[in-house]
Amino acid sequence: MKRTAFFISDGTGITAEALGRSLLAQFETSRLYMVTKPYIDTLDKAHQLLDVIKKTGEEDGHRPIVIDTIIDQNIRDIIKSADALNIDVFSTFLEPIENELGVKSSYTVGKTHALTKAKEDIYKSRIDSVHYALDNDDGARTHHYDKADLILVGVSRCGKTPTCIYLALQFGIRAANYPITEDDMLDTELPKSLRPYRHKLFGLTIDPERLSTIRHERRPNSHYADLHQCQREVSDVEALYQRHHISYLDSTYYSIEEIAARILAAAGIERRMSPI
Amino acid sequence: MKRTAFFISDGTGITAEALGRSLLAQFETSRLYMVTKPYIDTLDKAHQLLDVIKKTGEEDGHRPIVIDTIIDQNIRDIIKSADALNIDVFSTFLEPIENELGVKSSYTVGKTHALTKAKEDIYKSRIDSVHYALDNDDGARTHHYDKADLILVGVSRCGKTPTCIYLALQFGIRAANYPITEDDMLDTELPKSLRPYRHKLFGLTIDPERLSTIRHERRPNSHYADLHQCQREVSDVEALYQRHHISYLDSTYYSIEEIAARILAAAGIERRMSPI
Repeated sequence: MKRTAFFISDGTGITAEALGRSLLAQFETSRLYMVTKPYIDTLDKAHQLLDVIKKTGEEDGHRPIVIDTIIDQNIRDIIKSADALNIDVFSTFLEPIENELGVKSSYTVGKTHALTKAKEDIYKSRIDSVHYALDNDDGARTHHYDKADLILVGVSRCGKTPTCIYLALQFGIRAANYPITEDDMLDTELPKSLRPYRHKLFGLTIDPERLSTIRHERRPNSHYADLHQCQREVSDVEALYQRHHISYLDSTYYSIEEIAARILAAAGIERRMSPI
Repeated sequence: MKRTAFFISDGTGITAEALGRSLLAQFETSRLYMVTKPYIDTLDKAHQLLDVIKKTGEEDGHRPIVIDTIIDQNIRDIIKSADALNIDVFSTFLEPIENELGVKSSYTVGKTHALTKAKEDIYKSRIDSVHYALDNDDGARTHHYDKADLILVGVSRCGKTPTCIYLALQFGIRAANYPITEDDMLDTELPKSLRPYRHKLFGLTIDPERLSTIRHERRPNSHYADLHQCQREVSDVEALYQRHHISYLDSTYYSIEEIAARILAAAGIERRMSPI
């Protein structure tokens, strides 16, 4: 049995999609096909999509699941007329919040929200953080560490760069990263450029076999990718973390989202998020 | 009146947070204070958080709003005992989906989901795409364009890099970017390295005043940041897009999320997402 779920929005669709995927991830079925339809912001587009939903239901032999975060009442009414299981996120949850706060939402009033100065500032800090992460990637420049919220350290290819970028984009965190080299590990002291910032350091470690696989993809059959080399580096870097009391996390079995969220929780750093 | 909203999860908290912020963005009030509490995955942590919720409600003089995506029934019961407006995302929406699909969710069964091979592959493609975006940033390497899903073009600092990285992280899209220089615009032809890939090109443009502001932050009082220079570059690059029939978007008033979602919608590229 095939079944299709539509995540529909008059905006980016990111909220509908995130919620929809979280909900459907709770089911074992592999026959769930998920489609995101952003920017359904005119009656014409809504009617076209209604046809698609109808046709999909006929082809599947089962009515689709529709999860939507559409603001406009007229557009929502068209989508709701489809033969589908309708999960209407805003209608369901905004009413109790309106009652609680004693004010009507702009959803109910039927307009989208203007970008406030505060939201713009948060947004700008996210973009600035992305550029900060890129400029301070891989130990390229170490003289901006005073501006870092966090400095991720670890051996090459343990996941520092994607984590820093995710921290910047998602949470507006300025995260630099510094690769711990073999030379760094020979020294009992921390690398010189890191010493003033020990309180900002957070370490990543990784399973040596996984590291070797990742490095082989980048430089096949190199000394760099050799399993023994990876084992040595990982064991040395963990010793360095312990010697200098640096908190660290094993990235092997976590997604970037999880690594980032766990680092912030462990380091007690607040997320700076703007609504989508 | 101050009011606090808690977004609570036994995982990263990203779904609860995204949904919560979308919901609360529909209200004009500036006195809503939002706090995310990820990894509430033990009874101890739940009891501690219950105390925090209670105390916050007393301090605010209003009971908090609690939006949660906790899987474990026992942990959820503790959080639910708080004097708060409870928005229980999974309970609300999973039951109708269970009835529709005729199967119980792992939520109801009380276990979290194992990472399947398919999900791992999607995850790996997201990380690979991030490295691809970084390796192919700023026209650094143009000989991997055959592997690109998309090549973003535009003048320096119009938003190409953060957009490429977001496309990679969020949607698993391999996006390279190529900065259009003044030399490129003198030529009536496309830059040589782009010619074989005209069908993959997507342009960004930007308001010249905004561009000038952004460039001044990077290189104050430079020729590069001069308003007339920015006006000339923007008008030349738009002429180039039109001459070569390249679709393009004005990034000035959109967030990265919006730019990315609009580009994919316009280019007809499918998102490759893994559940969080």
